[in-house]
Amino acid sequence: MGNSATEPVTQRHAPDCVFCRIIAGEIPSERVHEDEKVIAFKDLSPQARVHVLVVPRAHLRDVTELAQEPALLAHTAKTAQKVAAELGDGDFRLIFNTGAGAGQTVFHVHAHVLAGGKLAEGEL
Amino acid sequence: MGNSATEPVTQRHAPDCVFCRIIAGEIPSERVHEDEKVIAFKDLSPQARVHVLVVPRAHLRDVTELAQEPALLAHTAKTAQKVAAELGDGDFRLIFNTGAGAGQTVFHVHAHVLAGGKLAEGEL
Repeated sequence: MGNSATEPVTQRHAPDCVFCRIIAGEIPSERVHEDEKVIAFKDLSPQARVHVLVVPRAHLRDVTELAQEPALLAHTAKTAQKVAAELGDGDFRLIFNTGAGAGQTVFHVHAHVLAGGKLAEGEL
Repeated sequence: MGNSATEPVTQRHAPDCVFCRIIAGEIPSERVHEDEKVIAFKDLSPQARVHVLVVPRAHLRDVTELAQEPALLAHTAKTAQKVAAELGDGDFRLIFNTGAGAGQTVFHVHAHVLAGGKLAEGEL
């Protein structure tokens, strides 16, 4: 099992987590980016022409936990920008849902990146 | 004028920026948090029961620029969590719009924090 007190936070892994299993390649995904810190793949229920999830490899619960690792949070945001530039026109909406009441359904932190078309501010 | 090459990024200020003017107190806002790095105030056109903007004091354009300052990005996210806990139930949606095509209307980076009620994942 992961998450022991001695394990570095950035190496956390949870065997039953669907995103950990996608990262491990046990569940297929349409990857658009990967590096040593994060992977990015297409959302299965896209809300925009480009809808990608940027997912740190470390099993952190949400953006609040991710904010304890500022460099990894920053890398996640930079990866979102990179994906938006490659798949869209560079403009993007970056969304972190935190908690079930905010629509978080997988409790492994992930950034939604919406791009590739006009997004109105009223459609938050 | 701000933004000279010798000025630290975290002290940037733009005299014509509406958020710089809110930060300076020249334009009123309903503040819910402030510290030496960020302020948070209620959005004038709320999209949820709690809709607060967390705004770094430094005049950075968007989350891509903010990601160059990882500690400040992390502090922005932590402040969002704090606001959501104080004004809502702790669950929140954190949104950065980057570029006009994504609905960014003020080019001083700001995080939208939506909280205080059920937010569906489909309502991104």
